[in-house]
Order: sequence, then C-alpha cells, then structure tokens
Amino acid sequence: MDFDRQARVYLGDCDTMRGNIAHKIVALSFAFLVLACSTVESRRASAQPLIVLLTDFGDKDHYTGALKGAIYSANPSARIDCITNQIREFDIAEGAYTLAEAAREYPDNTIFVAIVDPGVGSHRKGIAVKTKQGKIFIGPDNGVMWPASEEAGIVEVRELSNTALMHPGEISSTFHGRDIFGPVAGHLAAGTPFELVGPKLAGMAELTSPRATLSEERAVGDILHVDDYGNLITNIPVGTVREMGLHLGSCARVTVNGKEFKAQFVQTYSDVEAGAPLFLSNRGFVELAVNLGALSEIVGATQGMKVIIEPWSDGSQ
Amino acid sequence: MDFDRQARVYLGDCDTMRGNIAHKIVALSFAFLVLACSTVESRRASAQPLIVLLTDFGDKDHYTGALKGAIYSANPSARIDCITNQIREFDIAEGAYTLAEAAREYPDNTIFVAIVDPGVGSHRKGIAVKTKQGKIFIGPDNGVMWPASEEAGIVEVRELSNTALMHPGEISSTFHGRDIFGPVAGHLAAGTPFELVGPKLAGMAELTSPRATLSEERAVGDILHVDDYGNLITNIPVGTVREMGLHLGSCARVTVNGKEFKAQFVQTYSDVEAGAPLFLSNRGFVELAVNLGALSEIVGATQGMKVIIEPWSDGSQ
Amino acid sequence: MDFDRQARVYLGDCDTMRGNIAHKIVALSFAFLVLACSTVESRRASAQPLIVLLTDFGDKDHYTGALKGAIYSANPSARIDCITNQIREFDIAEGAYTLAEAAREYPDNTIFVAIVDPGVGSHRKGIAVKTKQGKIFIGPDNGVMWPASEEAGIVEVRELSNTALMHPGEISSTFHGRDIFGPVAGHLAAGTPFELVGPKLAGMAELTSPRATLSEERAVGDILHVDDYGNLITNIPVGTVREMGLHLGSCARVTVNGKEFKAQFVQTYSDVEAGAPLFLSNRGFVELAVNLGALSEIVGATQGMKVIIEPWSDGSQ
Repeated sequence: MDFDRQARVYLGDCDTMRGNIAHKIVALSFAFLVLACSTVESRRASAQPLIVLLTDFGDKDHYTGALKGAIYSANPSARIDCITNQIREFDIAEGAYTLAEAAREYPDNTIFVAIVDPGVGSHRKGIAVKTKQGKIFIGPDNGVMWPASEEAGIVEVRELSNTALMHPGEISSTFHGRDIFGPVAGHLAAGTPFELVGPKLAGMAELTSPRATLSEERAVGDILHVDDYGNLITNIPVGTVREMGLHLGSCARVTVNGKEFKAQFVQTYSDVEAGAPLFLSNRGFVELAVNLGALSEIVGATQGMKVIIEPWSDGSQ
Repeated sequence: MDFDRQARVYLGDCDTMRGNIAHKIVALSFAFLVLACSTVESRRASAQPLIVLLTDFGDKDHYTGALKGAIYSANPSARIDCITNQIREFDIAEGAYTLAEAAREYPDNTIFVAIVDPGVGSHRKGIAVKTKQGKIFIGPDNGVMWPASEEAGIVEVRELSNTALMHPGEISSTFHGRDIFGPVAGHLAAGTPFELVGPKLAGMAELTSPRATLSEERAVGDILHVDDYGNLITNIPVGTVREMGLHLGSCARVTVNGKEFKAQFVQTYSDVEAGAPLFLSNRGFVELAVNLGALSEIVGATQGMKVIIEPWSDGSQ
Repeated sequence: MDFDRQARVYLGDCDTMRGNIAHKIVALSFAFLVLACSTVESRRASAQPLIVLLTDFGDKDHYTGALKGAIYSANPSARIDCITNQIREFDIAEGAYTLAEAAREYPDNTIFVAIVDPGVGSHRKGIAVKTKQGKIFIGPDNGVMWPASEEAGIVEVRELSNTALMHPGEISSTFHGRDIFGPVAGHLAAGTPFELVGPKLAGMAELTSPRATLSEERAVGDILHVDDYGNLITNIPVGTVREMGLHLGSCARVTVNGKEFKAQFVQTYSDVEAGAPLFLSNRGFVELAVNLGALSEIVGATQGMKVIIEPWSDGSQ
C-alpha cells in the first residue's frame, strides 16, 4: 500500500535528522503535511473501478440479485451498476449491440460483466478481455462482448480458469454469472492483477454484423435494433444517404416489412408533426421513427429485417 | 480544499512558536490531533450528493446505461440511483407526478435528473432548478420538473449552456440525457458551482394539474395516477370527503368510466374482504382500490379519467 | 469513535514523555505512523453494510424511489441495492423463494428489506430478524422472510416499535416501506444497535412449503418457481430421482398440467438440441426446461402446479 510506504519514507527519515530542534520540528511539520496530503490523494485514487452488468436474466427472478451478491461477497466494497438485465433471452446480437452502445460512455477503468449465455456449462470458454482504453470485459466467449471490446481496442484475452477467484464451493453448470463471472469481476475491481484470471488465449469469438449495400439509387440495410420507443436503428450510414442526394428536409421512400412510406430527413423527432414518419442520424447511422409514436408497431418491424431507402421521386420534396 | 487550508493553518504556525521544547511538542500534538479529526470530518462531509434519475427510457435499451456512463465519466465518484426509467413514453404528467412523489423523500442535497422529453433537440430549453430545500432538478423545461420543484421551493432557474460541463465532442439532437443533463449533474455533484451551468432565466415551464370540484352532495375529481397494483390515486382531498359526511367505515357511491360501485372508507386495504372496493387516504387524497385486486382492470380506469364520489344513500351504512 | 480514542491514547502520552528530545521525536514519529495506519484501517472498517431490497412495488411507480429516498434520508451514506421490485403483487411465497435464493449470496453483514405486504397497516407486525450469519431481515411478519431467515439461522426477532427510527411525521397505514422498514434499515446500517428497534418477540411467522412425495416408481412434487426464461424449478430432490434409477443421459416421463413429455437428464441446457425438453440439477433440486425455449409456455405451467417424474419405460434410453 502506497500510504504505508510513504509513511515509512517520511517518518523513517526523521530520526536520522541532524541540526537544531527548531529545524527538526519544521521538517517534521513538512513531513506530516505531505503525508496528510498523500492520504487524501490515496483515498481519492483508491476508489474502486465500477462493475457494470448487462444480462438477459430479467429483473423479476433472483438471478440478478444472486449475481450482485456474489460480487459483493468477493469484494464487499464493490461499486455495481447495471446497463440492463432485460436483453431478450439468448439474443447475443441484441446484447452485443446494447453493450457497445452503453460501454463507450463509461470511464476507462470500468469492468463490464456481459452475460447472454445460451451455451452456459458447455465447451464455450469464459473469458476476460483487456482493452487499450483500459476497460475490461468479462463473460462467455460467444461474441456478445466482441463489438464493445473491438471498439475499446483488444489488448489481451484470457480464459477464466483460476478457481481461487470464483465462487467458493462447487461451480454449477447453469449459473456461471454467480459462480464465475461475478466473483472474478469483484476480485479484479479490488485490485487482483488481470494476469491471474487464467492463461492467455489467441483471441476471442467475433460477431459479424450485416453490412448495408449502397448504390446511387438506393440503400439496402438492416434493422440492428428496435428500441423501446419503437424506433428502428439501422446500419445504413447517413453519409451514404447524403451521397444519394438526400439532405435535411428531403423526403425518402422507405420500405420495411413490405410496407412503403414517405419519411422526412430531419434533425430531431419534433421537426415533423405528431405521427409523421422521419429519419435522422443516430451516431452517423439512419434511425427511422415517427414523432410521438412507435414506428415498429405501425409497420410490424423487428430486429434483423431489411430496410430500403430511396430518394422520393414524385417531386414532393 | 478545506483540508489543505487547515493543514497550513495548524502546521504553518508551528515554526513560529516560542518557548521550551516540551511546550512545542504539546502544541504539535494538539495540532495534529485537530488535523486528524478534521480529516475524518472532511471525509464525512465530502460524500457526494446523490444523483437520482427519472426517465421514460425504459430498462431494456442502452439509453439508461449510456446516461449513467456519461455521468460517471464526468464524475467517476458519482453516486447514482434511479426512481424509475419506465415513465410512459412522452408522458410528462406521469413523470411529473412520479418525480414529485419520490423526490420529497430524498435528502435535501440530492440532484435529480428528470427526462421525459418529447421535444428533445427543439427550441425547448434544458434547465437546472435550485430550490430552497437544496434539491436541484435538471432536465428539459417542459413542466416535468414543475411540481417537484415548486414543492421544494424554486430559488433560481438557469439555462444549461456551458458546454464545458457537457459531453465531450458533438452534442446530439436526440439524446440530451447522455450529452447534456447527465454530465451537468455529474459536475454539480462533484462540486461545480450552480452558477456555472448557464445564465439565469426568469422562470420555468409550469404544469397545471386539474382540480377537483366539490359540493356537499358530491366530489368530482380526476385520476392522477394508476399504479402498478391497479389502485387509482385521485386529486380529491380526503378532507372534503369528510365534509360530505363520510367517515371511516362509511360507504360511498363511486363512478369511474361509467361504472358505479360501492366502496368503503377504510384505514388500509385489508380492512375489507378480498376483492371488495374501498377508498382511503393517500397523503390526504382519495385513493380507490380493491383489496388484493386491481381496480383499474375491473373498471377499465386509466389516468386522466373523471371520478365521482357521493355518499351512499340506501341506508346500507 | 475508535479513531478519536486512539488519537487520545497516542497523542495524550506525548506530553508525559521524559528523556532527550531526539527520543521524543522518534516516539512522536512512531505514534503518528500508528495513528495514520489506524485511520486507514478505520476507514476500511467503516464502510457501511449494504441495504438490499426485495419488493412487489414494481419498477414503474414512485414507490421504490420513495422507499430508497426514505433510507437515504435516514442515512445519507447508505449503500442500497435491489434484488427485485417485481415480485408478483401480494405473492408472499414468490417473494420468500426469491429472497432466499438471492440472500444467501450476499455478505454476512447485509441488511435486507423484504416487502410483500398484503396486510400492511393491519394487526400484522413489522419485525427485524437477526441471524447467526449476521444478516438482518426487515419487513412484515407474514412469512416472506422465513426461508431466508431460517437458512441464515434465526437468533433474535424484534418488533419494530421505536418511532425514533421511523419516518419523521405521521406513519401511514399503507406505505410501511417508506415510513418504517426503510428508515429502520437505514439507521441499522449506520450503526444503531439492533436492540433499539423494539421489544423481543418469541418468534416469527413461518412459511411452510410443500414437500415432494417420492417412491421407487415416481416422484410427485410442485413447481416452486417459474423463472423469466420459462424454466420450472421444483421441490423434487435430484438425489431421489437418482435413486429411481435415473442418471445423466437417462430419460424421464414428465407430467405437468396434464401434459406428458419425455425429458433427458443433463448437465446443462445445451446438452440437448434446441427445443428439446430436459431436466437438470438446480442446487440439488430438479429444474425442468427446454433448450433455448420457454417450457412454461409450451405446457402452460405456473407456480404451484404438480409435477410427476417417472423413469421412461419404452426402452428408449
């Protein structure tokens, strides 16, 4: 502990001091001032990194509570928060999307535990990923952590094999959140060196997401995510839509789920009247919506469906 | 920082002391004792105020996680908690009711971030409200914070315009929670003076709520809130119902959604048998319910519907 | 406070020291070193125990927020987390099951507040339960805390009657979470001695759960819990199923809700193909599931239904 080391440095020197007593007292005063300040500093520095959860456990059962309890038991001072526990069951792509969108906002020393794990207890590995940003991702090696890890810059992947960092007692085959991922995260947040989690791996499972295909006449992409408002976030870059000649205020012909509608390119939802379709830039990608309504319900859109965007051609612009 | 100042005060005096060495040591001892105690004191005092969220983001998407991440990035020691993220989408009245009912229970230095924001990115302002109690409210200026702010005593309203307190990089037009409200709250909790958020405004958007109309024969009011149990919280003061001659044990004829039923005035739900209608005082206002059931489903009641209460007249009391 | 006491011990001795000044300074140095270390120690030790909530309040209304606010107001440094607020309304058995399954994972000094309270405001008591493990349970005396308390070893039960530890002002008849249970938990976490909550009681309300009946030919048990994935957790011990001759890889004839199906005894879900029924050990009890599906929806199973397990007899093993 830095504090003890510094205390020895400043105080240990005192009894070798020579000179008159007044000087000694001045020196002592200074030593303690430095010491006191370093205490404050070390307190500030010693705040543990956050542990942030994303799971498909739901918020009704005991699973999320048991996971958090296991983290606190490994590390009673843990600071735990959740992105969501309501990823659709077994939906790795949904989990990966949500993790990446949220993780980028957190401080660089955050430790994420991401559990969407249809293969729990099978041959799939449990891993920890160290990134260039400093973020650490812990969970099953099934791709759920790939987009967030890649964005943060993968530095090292290790397999979780050190049972000293896991739940005491038998490890279940069906609840690795409680028995492995949570406790390992707790120990890392408390200062256990990353290297101790287990042996280095050559890499981690990747998750390829579909790419939009683009031409001058139309963009064909995919719905990456349907949010709780019913907005459709796609993989179509706004830049390409602009290259098609569409600009703020322009209208496009949009086709989703066999339904065709006219949508205006706007800055924000309320730029059109209530109930009118629109599209806008969501971090550089096309988001389709209706103002004050749920587009997904109106057109029956779900994640993974195709989206076609073409310039509106009847001169209505 | 108080700590440093005090350290200078106590230690700086030491080397000007005159008198015998023993006295000096006694003085030093005392100085350090005071210093040590003040350290403890300042640690206690320096616990950051809570940041408490209320949004219509839902708990499934990345939005709430991204909001919290942006707060932690602005202020790594932030203490964040949530009232709810499940306000009905765009329902400002619902958000305002829920915020007011919860906010009054929190410590006076709490910072609330309230986001029900159908006009995000439009001309509506982002504001911070300082109150007499000490509570601070941050969010869109659309009335969602009005009832809670008014109850806490509005002292000063400022427009959020200081980009140094916002998300680094471009500010989006569609996610001011992550880009503006969250980071500003994080900075205020870390000690940034309130005045720095932006210029003073003359006031804030108000939200008028309907008033019950009362006579000696009947009270006509509104359903302010339908809770998760299916209970109906109204704006009819219990005092007025008492003035109509109803008292604990009395029965009333209640009309909601065109359905008429007999309800007993009770202290608590289990005062009547399972499935029986009742009404009671919820912080001085009439709440309608059935014991162990969901009245809202039985009569098809929703927020905003009219409620009529009359004394029961067939002598059944 | 230990810190002050120790400071007096180490510093108070200084001015009675005799001998040469150099020795005094050495002694002083040592005293402050010990003092400094003890400060760090007391900081570590003074981290408050967690307060962990389980309620049927839902996550939409202000109730959970108001409960947390009341805890923070009683104890501004409180560390609050939730198991769930989505226990089915009034379902004491569901709350008891979920509390027990989660509580065992938390540190031994955790304080639980468990509120599923159809009898709020009636003659039922509010209690606090001290356990051998150190965990404390606070809530209504209706059985919801029985299984978790029994597992942790009941040491002492007290009735909550000390109004000094409750919400300031009038105590409502309908919201004891905010007015009684929360504030009492806040005070206990801040260090108020357990004995001060109120007088000792002879015991607490128990909750008997159904027992499976077993023979060599078949096991007849009950569904204790249907989780969010649609898995059925039963009260049938895996040991007994083994005694019936079933082992990993064996198949059983399972009857639930009048529907009969063949299920394989496996280690984990993905040991069978997608959509295939299976059963496995969930902490020593039989859990029925289908891989990547929701068994509860397929057979229409709900909590409390009977489950029959027999060895599969057509030689298909």
